[in-house]
Amino acid sequence: MQDDLIAPGLHPMLAARWSPTTFDPVHEVDAGQVELLVEAARWAPSAGNSQPWAFVVGRRGDETHRRLVRHLAASSGRWAPSASVLVANLAHRYVEDTDWEYSEFAHYDLGQAVAHMTLQAQALGLFVRQFRAFDRDGVAAEFGVPAHWEVTTMSAIGRVPAGAGPLDSPVPASRERRPVGELLWTRV
Amino acid sequence: MQDDLIAPGLHPMLAARWSPTTFDPVHEVDAGQVELLVEAARWAPSAGNSQPWAFVVGRRGDETHRRLVRHLAASSGRWAPSASVLVANLAHRYVEDTDWEYSEFAHYDLGQAVAHMTLQAQALGLFVRQFRAFDRDGVAAEFGVPAHWEVTTMSAIGRVPAGAGPLDSPVPASRERRPVGELLWTRV
Repeated sequence: MQDDLIAPGLHPMLAARWSPTTFDPVHEVDAGQVELLVEAARWAPSAGNSQPWAFVVGRRGDETHRRLVRHLAASSGRWAPSASVLVANLAHRYVEDTDWEYSEFAHYDLGQAVAHMTLQAQALGLFVRQFRAFDRDGVAAEFGVPAHWEVTTMSAIGRVPAGAGPLDSPVPASRERRPVGELLWTRV
Repeated sequence: MQDDLIAPGLHPMLAARWSPTTFDPVHEVDAGQVELLVEAARWAPSAGNSQPWAFVVGRRGDETHRRLVRHLAASSGRWAPSASVLVANLAHRYVEDTDWEYSEFAHYDLGQAVAHMTLQAQALGLFVRQFRAFDRDGVAAEFGVPAHWEVTTMSAIGRVPAGAGPLDSPVPASRERRPVGELLWTRV
């Protein structure tokens, strides 16, 4: 299997997922759609049902969105604000007022929750790009995130305009992966 | 919204996902299905396309499965071997021969990859339970996993027999979640 080909039979949502950097700057999501995005994350699995996740969700045009945009890096500031939704994804890393890990799997489970949110977005006709190019401390201070939580990543969620698909961009979305043989440790 | 109710409109695969501990001990998956499970993980997103994941995949009856089963804890040893597939999920944690993190998001991205594998399993009529009850060092030694990789979790994947659904068990699967209001840091 070539490393840039997706095997036939992969679920269509998984096969179609990609991470755009061009979003429709006019498209808006409604409150019910935001609720479904959070609901998808809410029902993700986690170690011992620890649910080590929380989210700051801003819809373009609302105050939360404006406050999130302030803390984007110059790079993400060029494309992320045009998405319909910005989400800060928070991990419950420590037990409050200690340096004890809340869960060894806080990042792992947050990743799962964001993956579930991403697939729910696709079910709504939206695409997601996750990124790290923002000021973590700035977002934490802005929203009063306590020290035992971490602002781990952000997601931009929106509609992709016609002509801005994964094959249309002058800088194509990353469609390469390590070959299957490198992923499998089955025979040693 | 009650914390044990799933909102209508959630994608059916996300709404139906749960983590069984009873698997059909006769059902087998074929090599093509295993390939699709790995393919789903392979196309997950990751920070800078770092792809910090690898997998040891055993199908019940094969040698890899027997070698994985040896390292289960007493608790998981009671139910996990009856699943059709056991997978050890590996995170690329360090740059080889250093204590530098390979990626700050190794666990986060492995979680996403396992979530994608889980949803592909559902597309094949299978369910997944992830667990930590196994001997990490034992699995690493068994398969020659180098020190810069970590055997983070295992997944049991298989068919759920009739009468063993989420509502049939004397110990129901965990169907409770924190309410939406607790997950949202939107208004501070």
